[in-house]
Amino acid sequence: MRAVTFQAAGEVRVEERPDPELQAPSDVVVRIEATGVCGSDLHIYHGRVKIEPGFTIGHEYVGTVVAAGDAVERVSVGDRVLGCFHTACGACFFCRRGDYHRCVQSRTFGHGATLGSLQGTQADMALVPQADIVLRKVPEGMSSDTALFAGDVMGTGFHAVHASGLEPGDVVAVLGLGPVGLCAVQAARAVGASRVLAIDSVPERLAVAQALGGVPVHLTEDDPRAAAREATEGRGVDVCVDAVGHPDALDMAVRLTRPCGSVQCIGVYAERAEVHLGLLWLKAITLRGGQANVIGHVDRVLAMMAAGVLDPTPLVTHHMALEDAPEAYAIYDRREALKIVLSP
Amino acid sequence: MRAVTFQAAGEVRVEERPDPELQAPSDVVVRIEATGVCGSDLHIYHGRVKIEPGFTIGHEYVGTVVAAGDAVERVSVGDRVLGCFHTACGACFFCRRGDYHRCVQSRTFGHGATLGSLQGTQADMALVPQADIVLRKVPEGMSSDTALFAGDVMGTGFHAVHASGLEPGDVVAVLGLGPVGLCAVQAARAVGASRVLAIDSVPERLAVAQALGGVPVHLTEDDPRAAAREATEGRGVDVCVDAVGHPDALDMAVRLTRPCGSVQCIGVYAERAEVHLGLLWLKAITLRGGQANVIGHVDRVLAMMAAGVLDPTPLVTHHMALEDAPEAYAIYDRREALKIVLSP
Amino acid sequence: MRAVTFQAAGEVRVEERPDPELQAPSDVVVRIEATGVCGSDLHIYHGRVKIEPGFTIGHEYVGTVVAAGDAVERVSVGDRVLGCFHTACGACFFCRRGDYHRCVQSRTFGHGATLGSLQGTQADMALVPQADIVLRKVPEGMSSDTALFAGDVMGTGFHAVHASGLEPGDVVAVLGLGPVGLCAVQAARAVGASRVLAIDSVPERLAVAQALGGVPVHLTEDDPRAAAREATEGRGVDVCVDAVGHPDALDMAVRLTRPCGSVQCIGVYAERAEVHLGLLWLKAITLRGGQANVIGHVDRVLAMMAAGVLDPTPLVTHHMALEDAPEAYAIYDRREALKIVLSP
Amino acid sequence: MRAVTFQAAGEVRVEERPDPELQAPSDVVVRIEATGVCGSDLHIYHGRVKIEPGFTIGHEYVGTVVAAGDAVERVSVGDRVLGCFHTACGACFFCRRGDYHRCVQSRTFGHGATLGSLQGTQADMALVPQADIVLRKVPEGMSSDTALFAGDVMGTGFHAVHASGLEPGDVVAVLGLGPVGLCAVQAARAVGASRVLAIDSVPERLAVAQALGGVPVHLTEDDPRAAAREATEGRGVDVCVDAVGHPDALDMAVRLTRPCGSVQCIGVYAERAEVHLGLLWLKAITLRGGQANVIGHVDRVLAMMAAGVLDPTPLVTHHMALEDAPEAYAIYDRREALKIVLSP
Repeated sequence: MRAVTFQAAGEVRVEERPDPELQAPSDVVVRIEATGVCGSDLHIYHGRVKIEPGFTIGHEYVGTVVAAGDAVERVSVGDRVLGCFHTACGACFFCRRGDYHRCVQSRTFGHGATLGSLQGTQADMALVPQADIVLRKVPEGMSSDTALFAGDVMGTGFHAVHASGLEPGDVVAVLGLGPVGLCAVQAARAVGASRVLAIDSVPERLAVAQALGGVPVHLTEDDPRAAAREATEGRGVDVCVDAVGHPDALDMAVRLTRPCGSVQCIGVYAERAEVHLGLLWLKAITLRGGQANVIGHVDRVLAMMAAGVLDPTPLVTHHMALEDAPEAYAIYDRREALKIVLSP
Repeated sequence: MRAVTFQAAGEVRVEERPDPELQAPSDVVVRIEATGVCGSDLHIYHGRVKIEPGFTIGHEYVGTVVAAGDAVERVSVGDRVLGCFHTACGACFFCRRGDYHRCVQSRTFGHGATLGSLQGTQADMALVPQADIVLRKVPEGMSSDTALFAGDVMGTGFHAVHASGLEPGDVVAVLGLGPVGLCAVQAARAVGASRVLAIDSVPERLAVAQALGGVPVHLTEDDPRAAAREATEGRGVDVCVDAVGHPDALDMAVRLTRPCGSVQCIGVYAERAEVHLGLLWLKAITLRGGQANVIGHVDRVLAMMAAGVLDPTPLVTHHMALEDAPEAYAIYDRREALKIVLSP
Repeated sequence: MRAVTFQAAGEVRVEERPDPELQAPSDVVVRIEATGVCGSDLHIYHGRVKIEPGFTIGHEYVGTVVAAGDAVERVSVGDRVLGCFHTACGACFFCRRGDYHRCVQSRTFGHGATLGSLQGTQADMALVPQADIVLRKVPEGMSSDTALFAGDVMGTGFHAVHASGLEPGDVVAVLGLGPVGLCAVQAARAVGASRVLAIDSVPERLAVAQALGGVPVHLTEDDPRAAAREATEGRGVDVCVDAVGHPDALDMAVRLTRPCGSVQCIGVYAERAEVHLGLLWLKAITLRGGQANVIGHVDRVLAMMAAGVLDPTPLVTHHMALEDAPEAYAIYDRREALKIVLSP
Repeated sequence: MRAVTFQAAGEVRVEERPDPELQAPSDVVVRIEATGVCGSDLHIYHGRVKIEPGFTIGHEYVGTVVAAGDAVERVSVGDRVLGCFHTACGACFFCRRGDYHRCVQSRTFGHGATLGSLQGTQADMALVPQADIVLRKVPEGMSSDTALFAGDVMGTGFHAVHASGLEPGDVVAVLGLGPVGLCAVQAARAVGASRVLAIDSVPERLAVAQALGGVPVHLTEDDPRAAAREATEGRGVDVCVDAVGHPDALDMAVRLTRPCGSVQCIGVYAERAEVHLGLLWLKAITLRGGQANVIGHVDRVLAMMAAGVLDPTPLVTHHMALEDAPEAYAIYDRREALKIVLSP
């Protein structure tokens, strides 16, 4: 089969690989129908996340089950399925509490040896371990463009909102309008936020945010802090989603948020950084972060997408052939796309 | 001033009454701009809820503050305000926990001596005690048709949904599509329900429910239990709102709801009745009921109405003059109206 | 091996049975060290719960793993383990939400064909399916008298308290001081209840409740309603646990509980019954019931028992040999014992 | 009357002041029976918190109501009362949500102009505004040594535990065993923590922590991280209370805590500081901080103290006369006392 593999910083290649085979009773093999290129893939492409040259990348996928191990009960050969971007055991301390994103045996698709040596999904086929936990049937009539968001980008945007403790009627700010931030804008509206300030400096993204129900606020040409005050009688927003992952964004998030409010960092932090602890403490803000619990949310997200309450398709800017992955990565790298869907 | 007064079962009259005057430092006098006729008023009209002949009725209202006591801080003379249907002290055990609907000093407008001897709002003016707790300013640009729902019917529909523990993506059933049930349909959608089965036997109400985002299910011509199963892979709905208040409705609610689901009785129960305790127990259903905590929810409801996330105006079927209250009650009694708004 | 089998109403017998053998990869065989006689066993003994003559009964157990299937990861041959009274699949809709007590494939030990045809644990050995979900290692140094409560009686008492939403400082009433009620008394104190009214009519049980931290209140010689009022400035208790399972108990529970409080029915209801819905509604009480989620709680309960925060050993009134099961059931039937532990 | 006043860094004095008089209808005057010296007072004593020379200090108090404004309903002249360390309006956005610690009109006793110019309670008498919100009657038979903790130190220790989301059975670590840390140790046990690692470097404080139910862990002579791992099968503690308020403590808290656990900063932060955001994010830890909501918790704390579930009296190391305040501050400054109670 064909697979998109990492070669070196700035270079991916479509190569021949052996078809995947079942290795454990809980495994499934999926024939890929659509697979997305994601911001995380770009970290690999840029060489910031180190993986082995030749490793297959990609972790967003929709397809059809072509083989299933003996222990698999919830999907069958022939089922059209979508998957989550990582696996979970379903039995450890964290899984038993529903915190699948912290499963001690978690493996992430297409991220090399550091995240479990699980080959990616930008390929003709993919091996999916723990299939009963990782996969869901695609609801009748749902497009692959929609479905492949459930286990990754929309699951992450929804998590940002849901984990924040947002209550109906709250005023929300979302910092950073990449695909995850945009999904957070839509998710916040879908669960009853009365206003969602969507903050970025890219006009195209602000326009998409507005189409998804947000109030566009330009980071520098508008005044985000004034916008937050104006929307809340001066208090600050109830919830701020930091979808950037940079100390400056966190600093702004803390400033935009009202006392006893909540800041949810869905953008990735990996380093030490200076934080205005004094302001955080004075305002009694709750700060949460970390990777999204997409497995924990996937049933809800799918139900909301099936009902049209969540609809990520405005984010799909490009459809390309798997064969054209090198060009897709180049386009994505030039920030010309929000979401590229590859089809084998 | 003029006031709509109860006289006898089936008879209300517009009479002259002295203008209200401030009696306590927390009082406000409101000049009424719009006041609704509600299902609760009908209980009085029918003589089922006993009140003194000559008592002014009505408890939904929007208007302008014309006098305010010394201790009132949050509204001022000249403010356009809306109010909740009952008062609360803000300081008792229940108020301190946010359970304003169980305030030990609560008084309900227009319900006679049994509920605190507080004259009603279907009048040119009304005295509002505990104004800082009971009143809110009408958000800029909001119509009185919208605003007068915040402190009563929409507050109650929202309560039904919010108190039920509904989570985004849940499937909900609402039994009984009177104004409160219809508001519950809309509120459930607004906070992320993926599907809301709206169940009644009146075609017009089913049509309004559909317009508000519900899936209409005729009580007898369709099969509500089959609809619940179909929407949930056979499990039953996650949340059922009983907006009827009759043991048969409760029985159906218990049958429609999945194990570990939730039944919320917003319809009024006043008697002993036979309940299928065995089924309730076997399914481990959580059953909650009681009057809505509209004071606790009014800020959220107003924010959502201002944002257009909640919009009760499709329920307003009639506008009439205060003078025509006798006719309004007759129309409402014939079930020809969903919501009648009276204007002095 | 020897097994205690149901024969007919009022008759159990110790019979020879073939040793259990592994049937599925998730199975374990446990050599029993201690097994309890429980109130549920009495329902079988009385013939009220129908099971096949010759079926092995019992569902509380501590022992040692003597064989384990290939898929079992969390316990190993040689481990000293305790188990929950029922199995769960870990993967269905309910298990994924942590509601193991409503697992669609749940099987209960020792309850015959109606509850999954799973032979009981009052035997030399027992087959335990879904061992990773059902079993836990016994913490170092914990007696079997303590450990066998974790997966049944104490798990149920803890559930009654935890599911009720009890907050620290709350005043609680427990109706019915059988083993589960007594465990609920202790659990309520362990999580911060300021006072626990322990209500029954059997002086010995009232004395045990007092030793476990409760305030004994005789059902008829004292005045439970006055006691509830006295403890709460007249409001009623915050939480009432009905550990009886009879409409009269539920009626009292509703009367004892304050507005916006919570009634938790851990006693079993199987029939229709008249309920004072009006009072329940007027008081806005939350009513919950159903079998306990012991699998969901077992890690917490074990941790609290290991720390001595929960200690059910005062409930163990009798130690007997497995051989003497017929006599044990006769004693239990005469209500002369709270908990009888049988040892093979 | 006599009052303890701040003069300059390191100098307090007992001076004559006019008796306080009612200024608003919600005011009360309390004749002080006992008033504590607290760590916050030391910040003033050290000149780190700036207040006006001559300002009366102190904010922990028990006494008797000697005058009450017309609007006061919940306490009366002659009542023995205890108070919270700050006032709240009961009506603003934050108070309406129960977040009294963020009341927009909050004033703190004995902290000078920056915190509302409210004279302190280390005096013969004190003026208490918003008395219905700030004061509670002392439960029958409760000593002043116990009662004066409710509205300050124990309220803060309880807050640290309650706001953290601690669940029964959790393993907790408390960093810093000053009075607040010690109260947090006891509160954690009281609400069901299975183990509480109490970490400090002062042997006497470790001994008190052990007496209050904690497991003493010396900061440098023992290995706190090893202790946390040992208590949790290597995962880290479920909840860590930082009762220090220094970036090193926060760093240790993040390291001690398990993935998806919670860090509660009750120690004060006022500056920017470097934080290991990467570790916080990777572990998906929830970080909360801020001043305690003692008004929100005072009823619960009092109920638990009345029941003996919380008992702060082991922290009272000194009783002294109000007259001896200068010596009391000197002793406290030399860290020779945990809690000094002054009596006029």
